[in-house]
This record gives sequence, C-alpha cells and structure tokens, in this order.
Amino acid sequence: VTARSLVCGLDVGGTNVRGLAFDPAAPTEAGIERRVPTPYTATDLLSAIVGVVHGLAEAVEADGDEIGSAGLGIAGLVDRSGRLVFSPNLPGVHDEPLRDELMRELGLPVIVENDATAAAWGERVAGAGMDVDEMILITLGTGIGAGIVAAGNLVVGRNGFAGEAGHMVVDPAGPRCPCGRRGCWERFASGSGLGRLGREAALAGRLGSVVASLGNDPEQVRGEHLTKAAADGDPEALAVLEEFAWWVALGLANLTHILDTELIVIGGGLVSVGDLLLDPVRRSYVELLYASDRRVPARIEPAVLGEDAGAIGAGLLAAR
Amino acid sequence: VTARSLVCGLDVGGTNVRGLAFDPAAPTEAGIERRVPTPYTATDLLSAIVGVVHGLAEAVEADGDEIGSAGLGIAGLVDRSGRLVFSPNLPGVHDEPLRDELMRELGLPVIVENDATAAAWGERVAGAGMDVDEMILITLGTGIGAGIVAAGNLVVGRNGFAGEAGHMVVDPAGPRCPCGRRGCWERFASGSGLGRLGREAALAGRLGSVVASLGNDPEQVRGEHLTKAAADGDPEALAVLEEFAWWVALGLANLTHILDTELIVIGGGLVSVGDLLLDPVRRSYVELLYASDRRVPARIEPAVLGEDAGAIGAGLLAAR
Repeated sequence: VTARSLVCGLDVGGTNVRGLAFDPAAPTEAGIERRVPTPYTATDLLSAIVGVVHGLAEAVEADGDEIGSAGLGIAGLVDRSGRLVFSPNLPGVHDEPLRDELMRELGLPVIVENDATAAAWGERVAGAGMDVDEMILITLGTGIGAGIVAAGNLVVGRNGFAGEAGHMVVDPAGPRCPCGRRGCWERFASGSGLGRLGREAALAGRLGSVVASLGNDPEQVRGEHLTKAAADGDPEALAVLEEFAWWVALGLANLTHILDTELIVIGGGLVSVGDLLLDPVRRSYVELLYASDRRVPARIEPAVLGEDAGAIGAGLLAAR
Repeated sequence: VTARSLVCGLDVGGTNVRGLAFDPAAPTEAGIERRVPTPYTATDLLSAIVGVVHGLAEAVEADGDEIGSAGLGIAGLVDRSGRLVFSPNLPGVHDEPLRDELMRELGLPVIVENDATAAAWGERVAGAGMDVDEMILITLGTGIGAGIVAAGNLVVGRNGFAGEAGHMVVDPAGPRCPCGRRGCWERFASGSGLGRLGREAALAGRLGSVVASLGNDPEQVRGEHLTKAAADGDPEALAVLEEFAWWVALGLANLTHILDTELIVIGGGLVSVGDLLLDPVRRSYVELLYASDRRVPARIEPAVLGEDAGAIGAGLLAAR
C-alpha cells in the first residue's frame, strides 16, 4: 500500500475549530475529524488550529498516510495573502497574517480563505454544484455569506473580499445594520432578519400562538420559534416565513441579474428548514427575475455537504 | 506592404448602427467609420448591418487590407449563441439569431454581445481598464448597462445575460420600472432617474430657477436641465445632483460588495457631466462601502473610449 498525501481542511466557526483530513481525490469519503472550541485571541486561535492539524497528522500517520497541505476557511474579510483583516465572530483577531503564521508553524503549504468562499468551492467540486460553472453559494445563518463561481473559477476580487452580498443594500430606509448602514440584505434575509420580521409581526398582533408560547412577550420571538411553528403548520408563522422568503429571493434575483448564475446553493443553519422555506423562495425568485419568461431561472438547491462544506472546500483549495 | 487583417466592430444603438474597421493590435488608432440610422425590423436591421460591413470592407480593400471578422454590440439580452433575445430599444426584434444570420450573410466569423459587455471589454483592453483584472463598466444613459471583468475575463453568465445591474432592486417601495418590478437601480441612477429626482424636487418647491426657465412647469424638468444648471453653479440643481450621485454610489457599493472590483469605469451620456457628478459619487461610495477603512476603495473613473467603446470592444472580442 502506497502512502497517500491527504489534505487538512479547517473551518473556524464562532463555536468550534473543526478539522478534517481527507483524500482530495475523494473529498466526501469519511475522513478523520478533530474539533476544539474556538478561542478568542489570535495567539490562542493559532495554537488551537496548530493543535487540530497536529492531532489529525498523528492519526493519519498511524495509517501510513501523510498530510501534504492545509486549507482554512474563516468568517470575515480575508485578503489574497491569507491575512484575516476582520472577522465579525472574532473581534479580538484582526490584521492577522494567518496563512504566513500557519505555514511557519506547520511547515506545510497553507491557504486561508473566507468560509463562504471555501464552502462554495466545496459544493462546486464535491457537492450540489458538481459540473456547474456558474454557481453562487449563499449561507443563511446569523448573517449572510456568499461565495461565487463564474466560468468555473472562484471570484475572489481585487483584495479577496468578493462575496459580501449580505451587505448589499436592498432598502435604504430599512433597519440599521451593525456595519453602520441601513437596509443591508442580511438585516432581512438571515436568521436575525427572520427573528426581526417575527417580532414586527408579533408586535402588530399577529403570531398569536407563537407569542402565547413565549409568555405573551412578543419581544421574545426568534427565528427558530417561527421555523418550528411553521413546520407545525401554524398559518401565521407560515405567512411570516413567506415574507422572509420574499426578502431572500430579492437578493438572489439581484445576484442573478448581475451574474446570470445557473445554480444557487443555500447553506447555513436556515437550510434545515428545507422546502418549507425553499419553495416560497423559488416562487418569489421567479416573480422577481428580470425577463423571467425569456431565460431559464437558476435552480435553488440546498447545500449537500452540510457543516463540512467549508472545511472540504478549504482543503480542496489547498490541494490545487 | 503586407495586407493587414482588420476587424469590424459594430455598435447598434437606438439611433445609429455604427461600424469601425480597425487593427486589433492598435484599436485606438483612427479607423474607418460608417454609420446608418437604426431600422426597427429584424430584416432591415440585418440589411443595415451587412451594408455597413460591406461599405467598410470596400474602403479597407482599397487600402490593400481586408476584414477578417466582425463583432457586434447591441443593447438587451444576448445569449451565448449570439441570439438577440430581447432589446429594450428594438421591441420589434427579438429571438433573432443575429450571429448565425450575419455569419451566413458576411461569410466571416462573427460574435454578438450585449453592448455594455462589449464596451467593458473595449475599456479593459484599450481604455480606462488596461492592465486591470477586476473591473466593472457602468453606462449611465436612459437606462443602466453593465459589463463585468473578473480575474481578467468577461463575466457573461450561464445564458450570457450577466451585467443586468440596472435591474438590481435597491428600494422595494420605489417607483415602478417598465420591467414590472419596483425600485430597480436604473429608476434612480440613470438619466431617467435624474429627471425623476428633478421633477420630485421641483414639485416640492425646489429648483426655482430651473422651473422658471421651463415656463414654471415642474413636469418639464429633465436630466439635462439639471446637469446644465448644476454646471452653471445653481445650488439647488447641485443638491439634486448630489442626491442622484448617492443613488449611483449605492449601486456601485453593492456591486463592490459582491465582486470586490478594483476599477469602476463610468460611461454613457451622463459621463459628460464629468467630476461635477463623479466627485460626489466617489464621496458617497466610500461612505457606503462596507469596511471602507480596511480596504482600498475601487477607483471610479470616466470611460476613455467614448462612443467607440462598444464597437471597439465587440471588434476585439471577434478578433480573439
């Protein structure tokens, strides 16, 4: 048996640093996994990542294989040199040359990329977007992340910051965003946006059953209450989910007008809601699409790699 | 002297069909030009284009050169096979396989592309975007056109319809667009949008001098009245131009968040207003940019090829 050269794919989330060791020729075969809690200072974060890679390397070497490179996905602005410029999840870590530091510590080739961009590449190569050259991945979680594939290649942009679609302004008079502006798409179409739409509905006297289950306090309404009530068939929750789906679709239509994509892959926590969310998104999307009668609308599909997409994509980018 | 193989670049506008014969190795050297009025039926349009190419070919052959290929830019949705699916300027011409018909009539290799996409390529190769790999061209005319260059290549999308940025919705409660939706960017940031902002200001009692010069009828205010009054220093016209610049900048910031572009080239009729418009656009753009303190904002520059951009770009695409 010949020793295989595996890759290590890492995903730094708000909660965990996850690492997967896998064969880049078979990225969806079960690999070896390690995870540790995400630390909140740069020094501790580096140590944690190095620890995960060393742990994976030991396990891999026990099988006679080795790790040849490592790729890391992380939320926020990552420049083309692999420097983490700014991360919403890790306010204490910024302007950190993660790639150079990890290469020095690990003695391996390393790439560092925005997590949604990495996940888009994972889905493109090994997930919902196999053989699709024009694809966008959108992660709907607390915020919105995006990764763009055009003509079969990742769009990273001049600095490496492409895909900040969550900060596309879709309503200049809309709610204030932590970024300082008003009406960013992620104020409407993320998990936080769903909660806000729910609280607005509750304060307007709608969502009676949901509010009753929360001690009659409309301010307690969160996205997960709505998705659960909608799954149970609550018509008022379904109506708010429909409104939410319209905002999701608005941004997807905007992106389609700009990029004319073939496939939109939806990932992130909200994808667990399934077709209860995606069906109304698809309906509103076609209504919002320019010249929809003269084009094939993009398919809107759930991500298939789940929480592995970022780690798999980052590992595949490192293996290129 | 060796015979040169020139290209024919054509631009079908609402008013004229213009053709340029030029050397693709020196696209901005003065070439030979022909123009005829744009006909409004498919048959007459084809004849007009063929006539322009034949006229150019005769002139070129008189110099001992020849035309080796032709490229045509036209407003509207052009699919990847060079079929004009739909054109806002030519409602009588749709689903027309222009490329195939022109190849048959001309006996030459032909490409057909959206005019803003062609113009983006012209500016990329021979204009404001030379040596820039991440670039967007935006034409601000009656509507808005866009052409996108990412990683040095044109983004055309799955069907060929990328760049319909004018139909990005930026205010769902905004004015109705002929496309059927509300609040498309071009309802605010085109020449028509400037006129609308001007009429709103006039109806609200602003723009006194402009309105007085129009027989005191606020409904007569058009974009050109505002740009002229602003150029003459009218403070109320300058205030409306500033408001207009904010809407232009909003869309440019949205595009930057998605694509992280390095250079935004502004073409179309409104570029003649110059820095009187571009300076407030640049100021608002930086204010609207996500994480503007952590990135180099895109440069916003006027197109340099003027009304030749589309024909030059189309010719260069044909010569590839």
